[in-house]
Amino acid sequence: MAAEHKYFLTLNNINPNIKKMEYPLCGLFEARIAELEREIKNGVKKPFTEIIKPDTGDCHAIGQSPITFIRQVMSIVLYPPLLDDPKFPDDAKQRARVILNACRGGSIGSYTDATGIEIIRKHAAEFIEKRDGIPCNWEDVTLCGGAADGIKKILKLFIKETNGKRAGVMIPIPQYYFYSVTLDEFGLHKIRYYLDESQKWSVNIEEMQRSIDKAKEICIPKVLVIINPGNPTGQVLTRKNIEEIIQFAYKENLYILADEVHQNNIYSENSKFYSFKKVMTEMGKPYADMELSSFMSCSKGYSGECGFRAGFSETLNMCPEVKAVFHKASSPMLCSATGQACLEPLVCPPESGEPSYELFIKEKKDILDSLKSQAKLLVDTLNKFEGISCNEVQGAMYAFPQIKFSLRAIEAAKEQNQSPDKFYATEVLENTGIYIAPGEGFGQVPRTYHFCVTTLLPVNKMKIMLKNLEVFHKEFMDRYR
Amino acid sequence: MAAEHKYFLTLNNINPNIKKMEYPLCGLFEARIAELEREIKNGVKKPFTEIIKPDTGDCHAIGQSPITFIRQVMSIVLYPPLLDDPKFPDDAKQRARVILNACRGGSIGSYTDATGIEIIRKHAAEFIEKRDGIPCNWEDVTLCGGAADGIKKILKLFIKETNGKRAGVMIPIPQYYFYSVTLDEFGLHKIRYYLDESQKWSVNIEEMQRSIDKAKEICIPKVLVIINPGNPTGQVLTRKNIEEIIQFAYKENLYILADEVHQNNIYSENSKFYSFKKVMTEMGKPYADMELSSFMSCSKGYSGECGFRAGFSETLNMCPEVKAVFHKASSPMLCSATGQACLEPLVCPPESGEPSYELFIKEKKDILDSLKSQAKLLVDTLNKFEGISCNEVQGAMYAFPQIKFSLRAIEAAKEQNQSPDKFYATEVLENTGIYIAPGEGFGQVPRTYHFCVTTLLPVNKMKIMLKNLEVFHKEFMDRYR
Repeated sequence: MAAEHKYFLTLNNINPNIKKMEYPLCGLFEARIAELEREIKNGVKKPFTEIIKPDTGDCHAIGQSPITFIRQVMSIVLYPPLLDDPKFPDDAKQRARVILNACRGGSIGSYTDATGIEIIRKHAAEFIEKRDGIPCNWEDVTLCGGAADGIKKILKLFIKETNGKRAGVMIPIPQYYFYSVTLDEFGLHKIRYYLDESQKWSVNIEEMQRSIDKAKEICIPKVLVIINPGNPTGQVLTRKNIEEIIQFAYKENLYILADEVHQNNIYSENSKFYSFKKVMTEMGKPYADMELSSFMSCSKGYSGECGFRAGFSETLNMCPEVKAVFHKASSPMLCSATGQACLEPLVCPPESGEPSYELFIKEKKDILDSLKSQAKLLVDTLNKFEGISCNEVQGAMYAFPQIKFSLRAIEAAKEQNQSPDKFYATEVLENTGIYIAPGEGFGQVPRTYHFCVTTLLPVNKMKIMLKNLEVFHKEFMDRYR
Repeated sequence: MAAEHKYFLTLNNINPNIKKMEYPLCGLFEARIAELEREIKNGVKKPFTEIIKPDTGDCHAIGQSPITFIRQVMSIVLYPPLLDDPKFPDDAKQRARVILNACRGGSIGSYTDATGIEIIRKHAAEFIEKRDGIPCNWEDVTLCGGAADGIKKILKLFIKETNGKRAGVMIPIPQYYFYSVTLDEFGLHKIRYYLDESQKWSVNIEEMQRSIDKAKEICIPKVLVIINPGNPTGQVLTRKNIEEIIQFAYKENLYILADEVHQNNIYSENSKFYSFKKVMTEMGKPYADMELSSFMSCSKGYSGECGFRAGFSETLNMCPEVKAVFHKASSPMLCSATGQACLEPLVCPPESGEPSYELFIKEKKDILDSLKSQAKLLVDTLNKFEGISCNEVQGAMYAFPQIKFSLRAIEAAKEQNQSPDKFYATEVLENTGIYIAPGEGFGQVPRTYHFCVTTLLPVNKMKIMLKNLEVFHKEFMDRYR
């Protein structure tokens, strides 16, 4: 491009919020990973033969198989002549008919209502009701393009300055970077509260109080984000902890945003998933009247269908006038009908007596059992590494181990102008082909260092990964002893 | 809800842009339509037995059939065991394999790159190259969740105040309300320019100049939106008109946003689709260096797959630093892999000699021929109605006829506190069950009145609709003569 070229849109006049959006490190590593993959392809000699990326919750990419029933329903919906194919089971056909009957013109290629296909909202409400043992009004349920889309729709309602102060949103640290990036995009202030690593990554109310008190000087706190089960921290909050959080939110006038997309991923014998809705409702007034949005997704759990971009949210006790505006504002972003279709078999799985029941239960159990044993293998092995300590993965699909670096390792990182965890992750990548995401991108207590690794790798692959990581880790620790 | 109930989020502290988002009339009519449908279901006697809603480009809902090849590819991608099913043709299997091989872990359930699956971007680039006869760099092509998503991603780059003035975006009037609503949401100033109804809804440069000159007092004009073929006006811009528009945009330092989603819907013998990219490139420098984003969708054309929410954009000559930010900012809204999959058979349709070729060509031709004859039937019939005049539908899938109301009709509307076009649309709905969208929602020159009706109704249904409309219209004109 010639130097005199005149651009209308430049870094000087671009949306400053978009410019600010910080994708912690991903981009940097992504480019290097792509380079390494090219080098391997071109025969450049490396100490490894493939790149392993257990850094995101991309289930199918890393090894999880799709659930047959979900895919059968989807393929019939997309190609209805399969309704006459005897190879497809009757219950899959029945779910497909439910969806097709609800589509305008009988085609999944039509626009749906902005809040989603009514019958799927109703079935999602029944699913929630069964989960919590508490009534659910289907009109409180809306379908969305993945939890991310649903969360953005709610968060954007809060964008407003008051007397020159921005609205603030409390987010856990460490956190899945979607939140920090979205808050940057929306110009919302990030109020960071640290999870308590020494107490299995639980939420510490004193820390929340410290965090919000400090933030009040520069913003108006309005929303409290809770990720349960935790991403990337793998904790499952106790009922008591949830009660404390709700009391805190009530006292501080905070709208609760409960990211509960990993609700089906519970591994610890001592843990149980309690939805914020259930606890809040059972606490009675005034808590039961609080505003809450909860999010569920088809991307996690045993389905792992990230590529469909589908989920649903339940919003309770929203001011009726606000709800009207909220629904009105949802209209332009018409939901993907295919994504919505994927939710139907998830909220209406095969029941005992239906032809797909046994296969469905087996596949679901196999996946959840594997995730559980992979989580245990991962944590147990990492805890044997010198200087590494890792909390139990009670749920979700990530471990967030801490590493204690020697002073010499910290010095070596400083010489490279890198944080110690980024330095370590870079060294791991260059020497083993394994990408573990440095803690810096998720946030961590200053002068503590972590990395994030998912529990998704199948056991045989995970063993190889851990073996390679162990060899490297020993060498690294010795090098900087 | 008890009166003393305390809401954290209210109309007083909600995002003012979201509160402002104006859904022109839709909501109002939607509620009444739902009511009428309930009444019919419950046996309340009406002068009609069903509600006909030819008001949106919701192709499959109104009667268009999906293309077999697209659906076969999709169903295989979703349920890969169908690769072994002899009932599916080899070319559909080949396209499905291309997609599955490009998916992480071989599953459409995985996340894709934020800019879309690379091989589909490459095929889309080949499609564009073939269309224009001009090279297309696949790295300029990104996949998006429908054109709406792609357009929002570009528009949001421009949100920035300068010396207290908001950025301004030129939009045609009448326009598809997506633009006005999105600009409200983003706090961007709407610079409305009127299309020239007397010249087949072409773009009049003097009118653009008037519009931008006036707007400069209160905003900084930055973007020019062109919808070609027109929605809801059905014009196809001539090459000469496009050249004039490009010269105007250059002179005024405007980024061009070309909404070309109806590029396959051309009916008039005298019209041809020219992409803005083709014209701009062929005009040579300095125009060929201008910043341009063009949008295509699977929702329109002969596929009509609105429910998939998929499309692609080509962005030319974007400042490299801005492009880096743009791609970075795209990351959180990961594209739906299923939607992307739908694009592959669209940009790589069956070729001569492949097993699906003949059926594909037949289905495509049947749909486009039907749309053409429906458009002609609609316009020819409406032009016979007293007081109605309608431009030829040269392309897209909408007519936007003008009605001249008598003074008495205008008075009657005023008595109901309604605009004459809304009054007319209400009367049509209540008497015939047909919903035609009043022009007010799209914008129109003051003291002119229109309505919008799509060309999508199949001929037999359209004849019935037009007959009923004619009977009502005569009665209405007589009533207020």
